[in-house]
Amino acid sequence: MAPVLAIVGATGAVGTTMIDIINARETVPWAEIRPIASARSAGKVLQIRGAGVEVQVLSPEAFDGVDIALFDVPDEVSAEWAPIAAARGAVAVDNSGAFRMDPDVPLVVPEVNADKAADRPKGIIANPNCTTLSMMAAMGALHREFGLEALVVASYQAASGAGQAGVDRLQAELSAVAGKDLGAVSGDVAAAVAPLGDDSPFPAPLALNVVPWAGSLKDDGWSSEELKVRNESRKILGLPDLKVSATCVRVPVVTTHSLAVHATFAQEVSVEAAQKVIAAQPTIELDDDPAAGVWPTPAAVVGKDATHVGRIRQALDFPNTLDLFLCGDNLRKGAALNTYEIAETIAGEFAS
Amino acid sequence: MAPVLAIVGATGAVGTTMIDIINARETVPWAEIRPIASARSAGKVLQIRGAGVEVQVLSPEAFDGVDIALFDVPDEVSAEWAPIAAARGAVAVDNSGAFRMDPDVPLVVPEVNADKAADRPKGIIANPNCTTLSMMAAMGALHREFGLEALVVASYQAASGAGQAGVDRLQAELSAVAGKDLGAVSGDVAAAVAPLGDDSPFPAPLALNVVPWAGSLKDDGWSSEELKVRNESRKILGLPDLKVSATCVRVPVVTTHSLAVHATFAQEVSVEAAQKVIAAQPTIELDDDPAAGVWPTPAAVVGKDATHVGRIRQALDFPNTLDLFLCGDNLRKGAALNTYEIAETIAGEFAS
Repeated sequence: MAPVLAIVGATGAVGTTMIDIINARETVPWAEIRPIASARSAGKVLQIRGAGVEVQVLSPEAFDGVDIALFDVPDEVSAEWAPIAAARGAVAVDNSGAFRMDPDVPLVVPEVNADKAADRPKGIIANPNCTTLSMMAAMGALHREFGLEALVVASYQAASGAGQAGVDRLQAELSAVAGKDLGAVSGDVAAAVAPLGDDSPFPAPLALNVVPWAGSLKDDGWSSEELKVRNESRKILGLPDLKVSATCVRVPVVTTHSLAVHATFAQEVSVEAAQKVIAAQPTIELDDDPAAGVWPTPAAVVGKDATHVGRIRQALDFPNTLDLFLCGDNLRKGAALNTYEIAETIAGEFAS
Repeated sequence: MAPVLAIVGATGAVGTTMIDIINARETVPWAEIRPIASARSAGKVLQIRGAGVEVQVLSPEAFDGVDIALFDVPDEVSAEWAPIAAARGAVAVDNSGAFRMDPDVPLVVPEVNADKAADRPKGIIANPNCTTLSMMAAMGALHREFGLEALVVASYQAASGAGQAGVDRLQAELSAVAGKDLGAVSGDVAAAVAPLGDDSPFPAPLALNVVPWAGSLKDDGWSSEELKVRNESRKILGLPDLKVSATCVRVPVVTTHSLAVHATFAQEVSVEAAQKVIAAQPTIELDDDPAAGVWPTPAAVVGKDATHVGRIRQALDFPNTLDLFLCGDNLRKGAALNTYEIAETIAGEFAS
C-alpha cells in the first residue's frame, strides 16, 4: 500500500506551489493526496494530478489514514495542529517557525542531512526559513569537501518572503512612483507612497529603496531573520560552533532571495575546486562566467527549482575563504519544494 | 587675494550638484568661480551665488589664474587635462578613476586624511570612488578609536552610480513593468523590458532585480568596483595591509549607495562605544534604534550630506567585530560634496 499525503494550507501561496510541484512530477509515491485548509476554503475543488479533489476542513479526523502531512500555515496554527496530526499517526512536515529550533525536531534539507529525517521523536520534521534555505545546498556541498568554519552573509530578500501582501504592497508602491520623474520622486519616496497608507508588511517604503530589516527585534539589535540564518545553518549543517554573521535586507524584487556569502573553510579552496563541487550537485546550477556576462540574478531564477551560484572568488586577504553570490526561489526551494522533498525522502518508510 | 576655483564638467550631473552645494554655502573662500565644460556646453550661463556666469570651453588658457580646478569628467579626459591644469599652476582635484591609485597622487577624504592633501607632487588630488566613499568617514572614525583590521562588505548600489543613463534606464524599465501583474511579470522581467532594447548601462534588467556586477572584469573573477573598494580603502585609511573583501551589487534604487559592513578591530568594541564614536562625527548621522523602527534606508538619505549609520551589532561569533549598515548619497558625499570639501580644505593655502 502506498502512503497517504495531506497538505495543510493547500489553498495558500506555498500550498498552491506544492500542488504545482506535485502535478509536474512524472510519478508520485502517494496512494492519495488530501488537501486540507481552514473552513473558509473547505469545499473548494483543486486539480491534483488530473482529478478534482475537494479541500477538507482542518480537524483531527482529517488526519485519519494520513502518513505524512505537509503544513504551511502560521506559526500558531502549526504549533497547535502539527502535534494533533502526529498524535493521529501522521508525520508532520512543518514550514512554520514553530518547531525549527526544538531539539526533538529535525530541521532537514534533503541534500544536506536527509539522514536526520528518520530521528523524529515528536513525529514532526521542520523545514528551514527561506533565507537560510537559499544557501544550504551550496554550503552543505562545499562543507562536505572543504570543512566550513565561518559565514558572513548579506541578503537581498524578495517581497514575496512577506507573503502575497508583500507582493501587493510592492506592486502598489511601484505604480505610485513609476510614472513620475524618478530623479524627483527618489528624494521623497515616503511622500509618493503615503496615499497608500501605513498598512504595509514592510517597515519602510520598498519601491526605489532597500530596507535593512526583516522579522522582529531580538537581543542586542539583531533581527529574528538574522538569528534564524545563524541558528538554522548551524543545526542543518550539524556545526553547533559555526561562526555566522548575517545582515538581512529587503529589496524591491518580487520573488527569489539572493545572498552575498563570505565563507571560510578549514583548508584552501581554489575557485576551480569550488566550481567543480557546485557544478556536480544535482540541485544547483553554476552560473559563473563573468567574462561572458554570466552570474545569477533573482529575476532569472524565479520559478526554478535549483539554487543558482556564481561570482565565486578567492578572498584576496582572508585565508581559505571564498566570496560568492547565489539566488534561490524563496517560494520553491525556499518553501514548497524543500517541504515536499522531505516528504519524498521519507515516503519509502510507509510503502509496504 | 582670495583664490580662484574652476569647475570642469560644470554642466554634468555631478558638476550641477557641485554648484548646488556652492550656492547653499553661507560663505565661500573664492574670489571667482569659473565653470568650464566641453564646446557643446560652452556659452551657457549658470547661476552661481546670485550671478549669471558663462561656461568657458575647456582649453589650456581656461586655467589661467585658477588656483584649484575641480574635475568631474570621464577618466580619459581627466588623464589628459588634469596635468594641463596643474602645469598652468592650478591644483587639480579629480573625481575620475585616472589618478586614484597613483602613488604620487593623494586620495583624500577630509574627515579621514586631510593632512595628505598638502603632499601632491603632481599638483593633483584624487577623489575616491563613490562606493568606497560611502563608508570612509564612518570607518575612519572607528579606526581612529579601535584600530581597523578587516572589512567584509556587500553593496546595494544605486542606478545613478552609472550616471543619468542609469537613472533613465531604471525609469524606463519600471514603467515597462509597473502596470503589469507583478506576480506574472517577475517570472520574465527580461521579456518585459526587451522592447527597450539592449542599450542599457547595466548588464541585466535592474527593475525587480539585483545585479551582482559593477565595472569591468579584473583578474580572478573580481570586478573593478570590488577592487576599488579594497585598494582605495587601504590608501585612504593608510592601512596597506587592511583585509578587504567586497561584493558589489546594483539594486533598483535611484540614488544613495548602501553597504552592509562586517568590520573587525584590534580590540573589543561594544555597540555603545561604536554608537558614541559615530554620533560624535559632524558628517555622520547615527540612525540606530531598531525598537523604534530607526535604521538608515537609501530613500531617506537622498540629498543629504551626511552618511547615515545604523544596525550596529556586535558579531556573535567573531571577536572584536561589528556588523552594521550605512547609506550615503553617491552624488553628494560620494562625488560632488567630497570633491568640493577637498577644495575647501586646501583653500587656505592660496589666501594671502
